[in-house]
Amino acid sequence: MRVPDLIMKKRDGQELSAEEITYLIEGMVSGEVPDYQMAALCMAIYFRGMTPEETTAMTLAMARSGSTVDLSSIRGVKVDKHSTGGVGDTTTLVLAPMVAAAGAKVAKMSGRGLGHTGGTIDKLESIPGFRVDLTQEEFFGQVNRIGVAVAGATGDIAPADKKLYALRDVTATVESIPLIAASIISKKLATGADAIVLDVKTGSGAFMRDLDSARQLASLMIDIGRLAGRRMDAVITDMSQPLGMAIGNSLEVIEAIETLQGKRAGRLLEVCLELGARMLVASEVSANLDDARYRLQDALSSGQALQKLAQMIEAQGGDAACTQDPWALPVAPLRATITAPEDGYLSRADALTLGRAAMAMGAGRVRKEDSIDLSCGIVLAKSIGDRVHAGDTLATLYASSQRLLDEGCRMARHAFAVSLEPVDSPVLIHRL
Amino acid sequence: MRVPDLIMKKRDGQELSAEEITYLIEGMVSGEVPDYQMAALCMAIYFRGMTPEETTAMTLAMARSGSTVDLSSIRGVKVDKHSTGGVGDTTTLVLAPMVAAAGAKVAKMSGRGLGHTGGTIDKLESIPGFRVDLTQEEFFGQVNRIGVAVAGATGDIAPADKKLYALRDVTATVESIPLIAASIISKKLATGADAIVLDVKTGSGAFMRDLDSARQLASLMIDIGRLAGRRMDAVITDMSQPLGMAIGNSLEVIEAIETLQGKRAGRLLEVCLELGARMLVASEVSANLDDARYRLQDALSSGQALQKLAQMIEAQGGDAACTQDPWALPVAPLRATITAPEDGYLSRADALTLGRAAMAMGAGRVRKEDSIDLSCGIVLAKSIGDRVHAGDTLATLYASSQRLLDEGCRMARHAFAVSLEPVDSPVLIHRL
Repeated sequence: MRVPDLIMKKRDGQELSAEEITYLIEGMVSGEVPDYQMAALCMAIYFRGMTPEETTAMTLAMARSGSTVDLSSIRGVKVDKHSTGGVGDTTTLVLAPMVAAAGAKVAKMSGRGLGHTGGTIDKLESIPGFRVDLTQEEFFGQVNRIGVAVAGATGDIAPADKKLYALRDVTATVESIPLIAASIISKKLATGADAIVLDVKTGSGAFMRDLDSARQLASLMIDIGRLAGRRMDAVITDMSQPLGMAIGNSLEVIEAIETLQGKRAGRLLEVCLELGARMLVASEVSANLDDARYRLQDALSSGQALQKLAQMIEAQGGDAACTQDPWALPVAPLRATITAPEDGYLSRADALTLGRAAMAMGAGRVRKEDSIDLSCGIVLAKSIGDRVHAGDTLATLYASSQRLLDEGCRMARHAFAVSLEPVDSPVLIHRL
Repeated sequence: MRVPDLIMKKRDGQELSAEEITYLIEGMVSGEVPDYQMAALCMAIYFRGMTPEETTAMTLAMARSGSTVDLSSIRGVKVDKHSTGGVGDTTTLVLAPMVAAAGAKVAKMSGRGLGHTGGTIDKLESIPGFRVDLTQEEFFGQVNRIGVAVAGATGDIAPADKKLYALRDVTATVESIPLIAASIISKKLATGADAIVLDVKTGSGAFMRDLDSARQLASLMIDIGRLAGRRMDAVITDMSQPLGMAIGNSLEVIEAIETLQGKRAGRLLEVCLELGARMLVASEVSANLDDARYRLQDALSSGQALQKLAQMIEAQGGDAACTQDPWALPVAPLRATITAPEDGYLSRADALTLGRAAMAMGAGRVRKEDSIDLSCGIVLAKSIGDRVHAGDTLATLYASSQRLLDEGCRMARHAFAVSLEPVDSPVLIHRL
């Protein structure tokens, strides 16, 4: 096989065979296929797309490129959830203990945040003592014992995906639905869950800015996962405004705990119940979504979900006191508020702008190697559609220095708009 | 400037500024912009194209990337010709002495062949003693003294083009009209002619398979050249069948000499007269094309054009005896003929197939570093549209070993087809 011929084939809109795609991915990892050829191929894929068969071949080749996690030592159906990433998206911290309390096995490997989107592993590190780097034995043992573990990926998971993603990042080829799908599902296949529930975000703060692209991505990921023998389900959720009210690592943990305490309802809980119900059905704990929702509500109201979080924190070396007193977690000392300029209805609370403002204050990374401030961020007081009066607080910002706080306020202010006419809140959950 | 943002801009169909394009080309040469980013950019350009302004900026940046030739020490208007390359295309060997004999200054830097297309420098090396590697002083002195020199490019001409072309060659991004135009014109600008006449080939043996692409390429090259302050002219000529009757290095020199001797008319001479007339007008030797054609015919019939070739060969250290007895040049010893299978009209003599057959016998290179056999090749006996009888010779093949001869025959046979119905010969010259 001559690589330029394969690039030309894709460039001219023809379909590559599974053998050809495997040759390219394996060649990239071994170094035989140089980066410049993969870069040209990715750009050709950006313009020409890939069929589900091509995307599946790429996904499988990337999943096989490194070590794979064998979850068979955990009893029962193992269920995972994946979100395509957003702002104020704390679902894992609510979902994992809630679904485990309802009886499913949750063996979840998570990542760190990049850009304006947060990462579960960073958030968990704001809990004093919490260990995210479990060994495989610790990880499996904990899931068997208490039903839940959330940790960083162990071993060399899908190195082909890491390499290809790094290349796409510097060659303007990230925004390709089949390449995004292959990237996500390759890691999920390598980390071994039997069932996967996908939360595909749409809106300004998401990878997929419009609903149609989100639907395409969700359908394609379901197809690939099923072709690889996994149970798949997906919903599409709104990311035009942040999902939860908190943006920033410790602030999001606080919101998750308050949600498990039953003190907060709203969008975050609603999405967690939807995803959780689908996880319970996928893992065969519930026969249908109604039963699943009932179990989840029961796990919440009985306090078992909160207790499961405390168990998990303790099992991973953390101080579970925060599950009783979340505001004891580190929170940045300097505060400022953004207020409504006039009476009306909140018509905009832009997720991307708010995510970037939080990142500018130190909550997120520009580059992978950047360090972050776990204690800073933004807490929203209003959501789109809420009635507001001039002077009402729209958001409180938390930062570790006056300079960062001022910068955060300057940026976050542009996220909001107030309308004189009533405004509908955006549809939160789109089913496929 | 962030390179991924520039790639994205082009990917999304926006226009890059001259400053941005210059930054990319200079960065590629300095090594600051890695190959993988240039590869992704080239693929984005393949899909999105470039405006004449973008193409001009790239051309100028590449022309400036190495040494440039200053022809000002040669008196008068210096005129150059460029052909986009084809099979049996011996125009330079006929044109350069003919135009010089008619009074223009021809300072021509030529290249070697690659793939199925031949190169003037290789052809000239089949003349015993001929030196193609003149110093700049020798080159300038010879043009001032006898009006003509044809040599390999001196110095480091357009290294950015060399680097980018090598990258495009392995990333399936060669077939982009603006990239082809920038590549050709950057070298022409760096080698310093005041006036440039382009011969854009169209048909199976050419880069541009169809007339429409050839027209686009020709128009774009004229625009760029004019924006860079050069006098430009172009014609489009047929390359569905080979231009001349000979394919192969010494065989093409023989055909060129026989043409200058007045023994051969036909397509090669017709194209040379067209290009030559435009060169005389562009160099202000003739006021119009009619006067230019008259001067060229006179240079031919008086023997001055042939004499000019002899002068040039002697000036460059070669044995000019071949201008009297061309078949004394090295010609491969083994011969075979391909004959017409039935009575009819020759309907096909495919340039690409014949070029590849000659290359397979050793006349051309697959890779730049390959050595070639200057003495082998193919001489056609018939052209498209000619009446043929069963058993008539269509072509004679010359090779240095039976194995190569057999391989050449096997391949060349597929180039021909005979039709029972009369066939028109393809239109040879398309004016813009």
